Amino acid sequence: MTRQELIATIRKKQSFLCVGLDTDLKKIPAHLLQMDDPIFQFNKAIIDATLPYAVAYKPNLAFYESAGIEGLVQLKKTMDYLHSLDGKVFTIADAKRGDIGNTSQQYAKAFLDPAGDFNFDSLTVAPYMGEDSVTPFTVYDGKWVILLALTSNKGAFDFQFIEADGSKQRLFERVLERSQQWGDPNNMMYVVGATKADMLTAVRALVPDSFLLVPGVGAQGGSLTEVCRYGMTSECGLLVNSSRGIIYASNGEDFAQRAADEAHKLQQQMADELKNHSCFA
Amino acid sequence: MTRQELIATIRKKQSFLCVGLDTDLKKIPAHLLQMDDPIFQFNKAIIDATLPYAVAYKPNLAFYESAGIEGLVQLKKTMDYLHSLDGKVFTIADAKRGDIGNTSQQYAKAFLDPAGDFNFDSLTVAPYMGEDSVTPFTVYDGKWVILLALTSNKGAFDFQFIEADGSKQRLFERVLERSQQWGDPNNMMYVVGATKADMLTAVRALVPDSFLLVPGVGAQGGSLTEVCRYGMTSECGLLVNSSRGIIYASNGEDFAQRAADEAHKLQQQMADELKNHSCFA
Repeated sequence: MTRQELIATIRKKQSFLCVGLDTDLKKIPAHLLQMDDPIFQFNKAIIDATLPYAVAYKPNLAFYESAGIEGLVQLKKTMDYLHSLDGKVFTIADAKRGDIGNTSQQYAKAFLDPAGDFNFDSLTVAPYMGEDSVTPFTVYDGKWVILLALTSNKGAFDFQFIEADGSKQRLFERVLERSQQWGDPNNMMYVVGATKADMLTAVRALVPDSFLLVPGVGAQGGSLTEVCRYGMTSECGLLVNSSRGIIYASNGEDFAQRAADEAHKLQQQMADELKNHSCFA
Repeated sequence: MTRQELIATIRKKQSFLCVGLDTDLKKIPAHLLQMDDPIFQFNKAIIDATLPYAVAYKPNLAFYESAGIEGLVQLKKTMDYLHSLDGKVFTIADAKRGDIGNTSQQYAKAFLDPAGDFNFDSLTVAPYMGEDSVTPFTVYDGKWVILLALTSNKGAFDFQFIEADGSKQRLFERVLERSQQWGDPNNMMYVVGATKADMLTAVRALVPDSFLLVPGVGAQGGSLTEVCRYGMTSECGLLVNSSRGIIYASNGEDFAQRAADEAHKLQQQMADELKNHSCFA
C-alpha cells in the first residue's frame, strides 16, 4: 500500500487505528478452542468486527511462532483473509527483525514478497545492526520498513536514551537522523511508544513527515490525546496501535462485539483528533 | 546444554566450530532440488559430514522463513535430526529476536521450550529494547540467550561505536556491561564479529568468562588466529561460526565431502589454538 493509499484510507474511515493481533491461545474465548484453527477463527472474528473502525492490522509474529508451525499456518490464513477483503487495509508484520545485508534480504522476502506466504505491507525492524540490516526492506514497491526508534517498554531506558558522542543527541534521535539516508517517508516509518509521548516533539523535529507507528495506548497506559498533540501532522502521520485493549475486551462469546465497541470508541476519538488538528483541511 | 557440557564437548572434539546452516535453495546443489525436502536433505548431509569437527549448528531463521511455512517444516526436521544424534551438539537459533517482556516470553517459548517444535539450546537476541526484552530468554534451564554486542557487518559502525553519555564507553560496551545484570556466564553469551577482532580486548575486559559467538571468519574475512589471540579464555570461551565457507564449499555432488574438508581444516586450526593457549591445562 502506498503512502497516498494509506492517507486516503485514514481520511475515508476517519481513523488511524491499528489493531494488534497478539493472539494467544491462553487468552482467547474457550469456545474457540474446540475448532481446528482457533487462532484464525479468533482473528477473523476480530477483523470482521473491527474493520469499519481500523485501517491497519498488526499480527505480532511472536504469538504465532510460539504456537509452532501450526501457528504460522494460521497466520497465513489470517493474511489470506485480509487480502481477500473489499477495501484495502494496511498490514504490519510486527517481527522486529534485522540482520546482515544478505540475511535481511531473506527476511524481506519472507514477509514482503508478493509471491510469498504472507505478503505483508510492512514489517518492524530493530536498528542495532545499522544500514545494511535495514535497506533490504525498502526495495519492494509500495512496501515499508518500520524502524524501532523509541519503544514503549521499560527497557527502552537502558540504551535508547544514551547521549551520543558527547552531544545532546540521544540514541533514538541518532537512529531517526541516520536512517533518513536509508529510506524516505514513502517507504519508512518509525515506532515511537505512546508511553513516551513527551518525546514526540523531539521525534517530529527530525522526521516531520514520516508516519509513526505508536504502540502503548491502552494496556500500556499511553494517552491518545497526548500522542496527537505532539505527533500528528497535516496528513495525520500516525498509526496508533491497540492490541490487548481491543482483542481481549472480553473473553466470553461476546468477544467480537466487545472488540468492535472498543475499536469504535477509539475511532470516534480519532475522528475528533483529525478534526481538531485540521487534518486534510 | 549446560556450560559444563559445552566445555566438555569442545575439549573432547578439540573444536569450537559452529556450522552456520544458512541454507538457500538458490545455492544448494541442483540434484537436491528434485527431492521433496531439499533444505532438510542438504542440512542432513552437511551435519553428517561435519559432525566430527563441529560442536554447534546455527540455522539462521531468515533462510527458512524466506521459504515460507515449508521452510520451517524443514527446519523442524533438521532440529529433530540434530536431537536424534548420538552425542550432543549445541544448537543456536540465529533469530535476532527481541520485543517487550510479554512478547519476548512468546519468542522464548517458540525457540527454547523443550515441548515446542524446535527446542533450540539458544537464540540470538538484539539488545535495542533493553532488559525486559532479554530476560525472558534466561528462564529455561540449560538454555541460553546470545546477545548481539558487536556485529560483523559494515552497519555495525552506524550505532554500536557511539560513545555513551560523555564517556569513552561505546554502545557495544554499554550493552556488555549493563547486560551482566540480566544473566550470567551460564545462560548468556555475546555475538562479537571476527571482522572486529581488535575489539576483543575491550570485550574481554568487560566479560572475561562469557562465551562469545564469533561470526565473520571465512566469507566475511575475519581471522581465526586474531580471534583466539584476543578472545580465548582458559576454558576456550569461543564458538566460531563459519557458514558459507563450509556449506557452499562446492555446489556439486561432492558438496558434503568438501564441507567436511573445510570443517576439518578449521578443526585442526582450532585444536592448535586450544593447545597454544593452554586451554584445559
